[in-house]
Amino acid sequence: MITKTQASSTQTSGAAGPHPLLVVGSVGLDDVETRAGKRTGVLGGAASYFSVAASFLAPPRMVAVVGDDFPAAHTALFERHGVDLAGLERVPGKTFRWSGVYAADFLTRTTLDTQLNVFSDFRPKLPPAWVASDFVFLANIDPTLQLGVLEQAQKPRFVACDTMNFWISGKRPELLRLLGRVDMLLLNDEEARQLSGEANLPAAARAIRALGPSAVVIKRGDAGALLFHEAGVFAAPAFPIENVVDPTGAGDSFAGGFMGWLAHTGSTAPASIRTAMILGSTLASFAVEDFSLDRFRTLDLGQIRERFAAFADLVHFEKIRID
Amino acid sequence: MITKTQASSTQTSGAAGPHPLLVVGSVGLDDVETRAGKRTGVLGGAASYFSVAASFLAPPRMVAVVGDDFPAAHTALFERHGVDLAGLERVPGKTFRWSGVYAADFLTRTTLDTQLNVFSDFRPKLPPAWVASDFVFLANIDPTLQLGVLEQAQKPRFVACDTMNFWISGKRPELLRLLGRVDMLLLNDEEARQLSGEANLPAAARAIRALGPSAVVIKRGDAGALLFHEAGVFAAPAFPIENVVDPTGAGDSFAGGFMGWLAHTGSTAPASIRTAMILGSTLASFAVEDFSLDRFRTLDLGQIRERFAAFADLVHFEKIRID
Repeated sequence: MITKTQASSTQTSGAAGPHPLLVVGSVGLDDVETRAGKRTGVLGGAASYFSVAASFLAPPRMVAVVGDDFPAAHTALFERHGVDLAGLERVPGKTFRWSGVYAADFLTRTTLDTQLNVFSDFRPKLPPAWVASDFVFLANIDPTLQLGVLEQAQKPRFVACDTMNFWISGKRPELLRLLGRVDMLLLNDEEARQLSGEANLPAAARAIRALGPSAVVIKRGDAGALLFHEAGVFAAPAFPIENVVDPTGAGDSFAGGFMGWLAHTGSTAPASIRTAMILGSTLASFAVEDFSLDRFRTLDLGQIRERFAAFADLVHFEKIRID
Repeated sequence: MITKTQASSTQTSGAAGPHPLLVVGSVGLDDVETRAGKRTGVLGGAASYFSVAASFLAPPRMVAVVGDDFPAAHTALFERHGVDLAGLERVPGKTFRWSGVYAADFLTRTTLDTQLNVFSDFRPKLPPAWVASDFVFLANIDPTLQLGVLEQAQKPRFVACDTMNFWISGKRPELLRLLGRVDMLLLNDEEARQLSGEANLPAAARAIRALGPSAVVIKRGDAGALLFHEAGVFAAPAFPIENVVDPTGAGDSFAGGFMGWLAHTGSTAPASIRTAMILGSTLASFAVEDFSLDRFRTLDLGQIRERFAAFADLVHFEKIRID
């Protein structure tokens, strides 16, 4: 599906097909309001955004839970995108619900309501066939549950996780235990400052890497994302989007594009990680163009290819020599 | 001094030497306090940072005013950097003074005191030999004075200007008149939102370009800078600096590196403008590494070359083809 235009020893061939990619996280129903409008009961949740974003690069395995009110149309959407739902539990009760409103400038959002519902008893359980997944993404859930997933997984090659302010302050010991066992942490700038106690982002990344993850990705919304890892620093811009409709799920779509690329190539070499950053940014840039996962419904590889090229142009400058 | 490693038709040769570069703005004495320490009566002012930053690429002509208390050591610093001081008036009275303190996280700064002193009667006057300067930078001063400079200048090839919240709200008609006569406006994200009434930065840039400038540069501090012009959008990252000492003058140093490059090459082609964005970011990244203009005292072309290359590496990713 994807070939490189130049030879490189840093990436294994995708000829053998994508490597197994597992995601554990929330699937929910959202009520969201932005300057562009209002939607009620639309598909949401980190695992939803992650899975469908990743599906353009590698078919993901989803571990999540929904209630018996979860619309069949949403399940059908996952299936159309090749998401393997063998780990999606359907239990009696109501699906996780989130409700929020964005300020007109999109700089802040207010959560109006969160109902855990069936999610409050969620204990992620990997189907036996999925225990040997090479690539694992632990979306933002209780670090105790994230640890529980790792205890079931057999030597994944690359584990990335997300977290949030609530766990950084409320479950710090568990989070620190988790960080000792993951390869990469994705979090936003405020979370990075909170976790590390460092205001300066390179200093925060250094401190977080000392806690375990060899790679840290700091997401900064429309200011792009920074990768800090053993091969140095990489800056991915955000794509300038004039008509942002709904920023919900941008970070999880980023993670989906990122991990989708790693699973597609089977490579975790520094060059692959950089490309993954841009594919993450690419999927995130599409996610915000419509409510819920709606933009992904009409997205195709041609559009992804065009925007990937646009990212290359966005940062391109001629190399001059100063003497 | 600077050669390109690859052929390009977009840039004229620097063989004829740099083109005339004029800057009009403040020269002052600063008291500044950051988490890294405190300095009193150090060299400051937009024209100071701009000139010395630009001097590594093209010798600037400075139009400014100082009082009779202005230390000879500061004048000597300008001279060592090849800044032409034929337009620097020295008048009886005290030099412009600014005093400020930065929060420990550098996210906010508080101005403690501003004394205009001799600057309050400043009426920029171009020496006759400077009337025909090709490249002109109007640093952040009263837009009426900025307009006054343009009335003295004879058909400059490229005029860039800066401004601030104080003029956007207090001298809007004058600022709008100025914007109809400049090629480029540099401002920060908050100023872009204030001037345009648009929270979204691409939308803000579009609105500002409709006011006159064909190019708009939105500076975002440690999130880099965005260029919007007729050739599209360009995103320049900020260089990740772990030990920021003093952010004062970063924006003016950016402008100095930017305009210095244009004056060096004599080109305003889109490719040259992109390179100028990176050289601006390069000079800004050095400026914050020490108080006042101190980092520039030990800076040389070798270090600029190294950091320019580091910028190229910072954003480099392999071009893949998705089919």
